[in-house]
Amino acid sequence: MTRPLLTAYNWSPDKGAGLVRDMRVRWALEEVGQPYHVRHLNWGEQKQPAHRARHPFGQVPTYEEGGLVLFESGAIILHIAQTRPGLFPEDEDGKARAAEWMFAALNTVEPVVWDLVMARVLERDKPWFEERLPAVEARLRERLDELSVRLGEAAWLDGAFSAGDLLMVQVLRHLGATGILHSYPNLAAYVARGEARPAFARALAALRAGLTGDPPADWPY
Amino acid sequence: MTRPLLTAYNWSPDKGAGLVRDMRVRWALEEVGQPYHVRHLNWGEQKQPAHRARHPFGQVPTYEEGGLVLFESGAIILHIAQTRPGLFPEDEDGKARAAEWMFAALNTVEPVVWDLVMARVLERDKPWFEERLPAVEARLRERLDELSVRLGEAAWLDGAFSAGDLLMVQVLRHLGATGILHSYPNLAAYVARGEARPAFARALAALRAGLTGDPPADWPY
Repeated sequence: MTRPLLTAYNWSPDKGAGLVRDMRVRWALEEVGQPYHVRHLNWGEQKQPAHRARHPFGQVPTYEEGGLVLFESGAIILHIAQTRPGLFPEDEDGKARAAEWMFAALNTVEPVVWDLVMARVLERDKPWFEERLPAVEARLRERLDELSVRLGEAAWLDGAFSAGDLLMVQVLRHLGATGILHSYPNLAAYVARGEARPAFARALAALRAGLTGDPPADWPY
Repeated sequence: MTRPLLTAYNWSPDKGAGLVRDMRVRWALEEVGQPYHVRHLNWGEQKQPAHRARHPFGQVPTYEEGGLVLFESGAIILHIAQTRPGLFPEDEDGKARAAEWMFAALNTVEPVVWDLVMARVLERDKPWFEERLPAVEARLRERLDELSVRLGEAAWLDGAFSAGDLLMVQVLRHLGATGILHSYPNLAAYVARGEARPAFARALAALRAGLTGDPPADWPY
């Protein structure tokens, strides 16, 4: 099997915390033991035609393997989970439920997480920031309450670690700077459990080793 | 094959426009010619323990088939597309690209669509509404610009109609009331093409036939 080729930035908007979406795919590839190559983009290159041909929204990651070119980290991880053992259970119903948690991470939890992160980054100096924040936090806490209840004392969301856990942990990692997970000890422990996996550590080290460039000084994130 | 069982509301937050997420699954089932049963929930029942056991976030739709119980419309449609012909192409690379557009609809386009819809619904009477709106619209327009360029003059996003188109059309339908698609004639035509499919019409008629209840008078949406 030829090594797949990812696209990633050579600069970090988060000082190497591994929150950019190539981290999810690197982690998935490490979990299944699949070596890969990386094409690194300089600042701004993601919006140039050569990369737009791979990714219509001008982002990372992309994934190339044989004649297949994919964007969307969720779709890439689905492809990896379907073609290599390690991220999905063996039975068909179990696979469907792991995919369910992938979509829950990306379509139910991430939007409310992202609302808070974006408000803190883009609207911190706006006159309405303080007044609007409680409603944004309330929408997030409703989802975190529900997720915390569902997880309970389990290690992972549905049996063994799956691609659904991988995405949920990466989504929750965005909340690190907010301190909000201090209210949810089981979710904080869940994130720590994900970060303690050897595959996570290898993925983060590889991501950091590729950070040889910088964003512009006025980059707001 | 036994008929799958969906859960849907017997009330509509959108006067029967078919924007609630069971519409996506109904449409998918109609596309593949799979008859189904529906369990209708009264207002508030979605947050009760009986439904929480099926859906940890207290929403619709859910999907039951044999021993499988699924939530998340994206995961349900993935399951339908993988088990019945009609929503995915035959070849494996084509399936991966159809899944890519499913994730693009739900994780790249829907969040910016939803930001605008939620601002218009929840923040219309806030003092910051007018001042904040341009930035929300700008984030949405960036994605719509990119999607419009990618679609170009094609009928569908990647060859024949797929589960990716189904979800993208349903996501874009949320913009109907905003008028913003008037700036994107090819996207407006794409949505109209989706709505003109016989399976869409059958799904919407079935959804409307189930609307025998009402939300509370002070429901804000």
